[in-house]
Amino acid sequence: MSSNQPPLSAKLDGLQSSAIRDLLKLTSRAEIISLAGGLPDAALMPRERIAEAAEHALGDAAVLQYTESPGWAPLRAVLVERESRQLGRAVALDEVFVTHGSQQALSLLAEVLLDPGALVVVEDPAYVGALQVFRAAGARIVAVPLDAEGMRVDVLRTMLAGGERPAVVHTVSNFHNPGGVTMSPRRRAELAELADAHGFWVIEDDPYGELWFDSPAPAPVATYSRNVIRLSSASKIIAPTLRVGWMIAPDGVCRAVELLKQGADLCGSALTQQITAELLADDSWFPAHLDTVRATYRTRAEALVRAVRTTFGDRLTCTDASGGMFVWASFTDGTDTAALLPHALEQGVAYVPGAAFAVDTAYPHSMRMCFTTSDAQTLEQAVERLARAHAAGQRANSAHSIQS
Amino acid sequence: MSSNQPPLSAKLDGLQSSAIRDLLKLTSRAEIISLAGGLPDAALMPRERIAEAAEHALGDAAVLQYTESPGWAPLRAVLVERESRQLGRAVALDEVFVTHGSQQALSLLAEVLLDPGALVVVEDPAYVGALQVFRAAGARIVAVPLDAEGMRVDVLRTMLAGGERPAVVHTVSNFHNPGGVTMSPRRRAELAELADAHGFWVIEDDPYGELWFDSPAPAPVATYSRNVIRLSSASKIIAPTLRVGWMIAPDGVCRAVELLKQGADLCGSALTQQITAELLADDSWFPAHLDTVRATYRTRAEALVRAVRTTFGDRLTCTDASGGMFVWASFTDGTDTAALLPHALEQGVAYVPGAAFAVDTAYPHSMRMCFTTSDAQTLEQAVERLARAHAAGQRANSAHSIQS
Repeated sequence: MSSNQPPLSAKLDGLQSSAIRDLLKLTSRAEIISLAGGLPDAALMPRERIAEAAEHALGDAAVLQYTESPGWAPLRAVLVERESRQLGRAVALDEVFVTHGSQQALSLLAEVLLDPGALVVVEDPAYVGALQVFRAAGARIVAVPLDAEGMRVDVLRTMLAGGERPAVVHTVSNFHNPGGVTMSPRRRAELAELADAHGFWVIEDDPYGELWFDSPAPAPVATYSRNVIRLSSASKIIAPTLRVGWMIAPDGVCRAVELLKQGADLCGSALTQQITAELLADDSWFPAHLDTVRATYRTRAEALVRAVRTTFGDRLTCTDASGGMFVWASFTDGTDTAALLPHALEQGVAYVPGAAFAVDTAYPHSMRMCFTTSDAQTLEQAVERLARAHAAGQRANSAHSIQS
Repeated sequence: MSSNQPPLSAKLDGLQSSAIRDLLKLTSRAEIISLAGGLPDAALMPRERIAEAAEHALGDAAVLQYTESPGWAPLRAVLVERESRQLGRAVALDEVFVTHGSQQALSLLAEVLLDPGALVVVEDPAYVGALQVFRAAGARIVAVPLDAEGMRVDVLRTMLAGGERPAVVHTVSNFHNPGGVTMSPRRRAELAELADAHGFWVIEDDPYGELWFDSPAPAPVATYSRNVIRLSSASKIIAPTLRVGWMIAPDGVCRAVELLKQGADLCGSALTQQITAELLADDSWFPAHLDTVRATYRTRAEALVRAVRTTFGDRLTCTDASGGMFVWASFTDGTDTAALLPHALEQGVAYVPGAAFAVDTAYPHSMRMCFTTSDAQTLEQAVERLARAHAAGQRANSAHSIQS
């Protein structure tokens, strides 16, 4: 019997693994301090509280069975209350849809909202998980830059005035990944107004909103328009292993996503969804837990930013880190962060070069640094190593200049 | 601010909710004995053993974090051993990929293996979850009928001789849903030979193989050819809430599925995957657990088949139920099962009419009956009610004949 292996789909030719994922494989050596990850700190995840909730959940055989595609009813009820508070209006049960992490919401929404060739506006630099999904859906992607106030809505406005008609505008409104910035209230109102006026969807991707340090994030873009689909997740505030994300969207969008979820994976886990419901609803524990996470990340973020500014001065600007998990830093002395990376790895520190998040702009001098999984002292050490790498890179460059 | 809700994708127009799901919503009234479901019995799921394993798993913070897209390594190691035994060869780690239930494997494989317009051969009657996925992928679907030996491979051979070139042939090889039959060893060898000769993929969808009653299911189709992608699942042998399915496929297929899974949902739950690993690997418990499930389902299946044969005699033929969860029954007296259903619901019994599983053939006289969630006495009562419904249907028909 001769082997005659069948081909795979032609559409796979354009698909690439996430550059960040591939890099992470190289930087998991123990001696490297990695600022390259994008993971919350497992040590801050409530292991015992999850075990307790699992025990409670497993007191009822119903959590063992298949559950409904839109999610386990008790979790949806908790989310209705939570999101009604967030959005300042009575969110209906049919507007709440639980997904297998926020990423699944993005992927099902791409199918529900986009026809091939549809225009999707993303932020530049962009969340690569969203880029990957929109590219796979065959969308035409146009980028709008970020500044300190978040998405440059004025650039979007000019684009619309020029006749562009996006089907979807994607934004990470709070503590941007990778950009570190938060969209200002004024920009939120403007973006929502444009969505209403021009009839496009906004996907407000908000996994980090609860991770604010000094003051809560502004009211969601979704408070300004019903054309905004809001995504959130338990991954950064409880634990990724629950694989619980959720979407607040008009009933018609939720029903379309429901049809597609039946084909994608039938339903989620009633067990992990019941655990999530118990933890989110526990008012005597959850707020304090969240405060601990916030305080810990704040200490780390401040240590990183302080070390960068003390060590590099004006040669490396970075965002303030008022929440979330990331600092975005850019060299002003022409240092190329992709060329610097081998030197950094040699010195025992890793980060993600800006190029990994580029849409239209290349970001050759920028990088993303994640501060969640190292303590303050380790972060200071990381910046020392980065400084040594920077010096080594400059020596290599001048040697190269002399030779050539 | 005027509302101006954006449209959804045009491709949703062709999508419909599963007829079975919609029917199930109507038949969940407590007084109805439902043979319409497709669920394993929650009372047989090892609730305490799962709780124990959850407690063990949560002793390690690593289960709280994101895990690798191909699955939690300890589970993949357990599956390597298990599937090496099943397939009679050393399965490599890179051939094992864990999915969010078997349904996710189907859905990602449809993307990986099919270009729009590709030909997919399914069995008739068909597993509707597979049909839904292949239709959504834009495949051209051709059906091959089942008989007592499973897929009519001779019909497939004629089709191939006629010049048809399928990209994928999908089969539920063991205890077919809804057909109730198992593919014979001879047919398995023939199907594999055709896959090798003509270079197509076989998806061997095997969630029920372990649920045999008197003797084990034949060796998987995958033992005969490397062009066979084998799917299995923990849903029917442990519990659906784990959302653990797995795929054994060539490395290249697994890597392509990995790329797509990153976009679809990043990864599964290390917690539920570790629970699954512990339970599957527990040789002092798992075989006995499985024996209990088998023995219970066998008693129920026998009771249902006996009641059908005693009550209806030659007017209703049904499969023997040598394993799995379903009996496929067909009226020989011209009774239309879709027309009978309202009478059945009135008498307090539900089933799924054959039409719900139809591809090319309409199956107007057939129905699927699930025996897993009712005890023997209840199943006998269900058949009594079905007989009353059948009599009422006949009276209504003759009244109609007299009137017209």
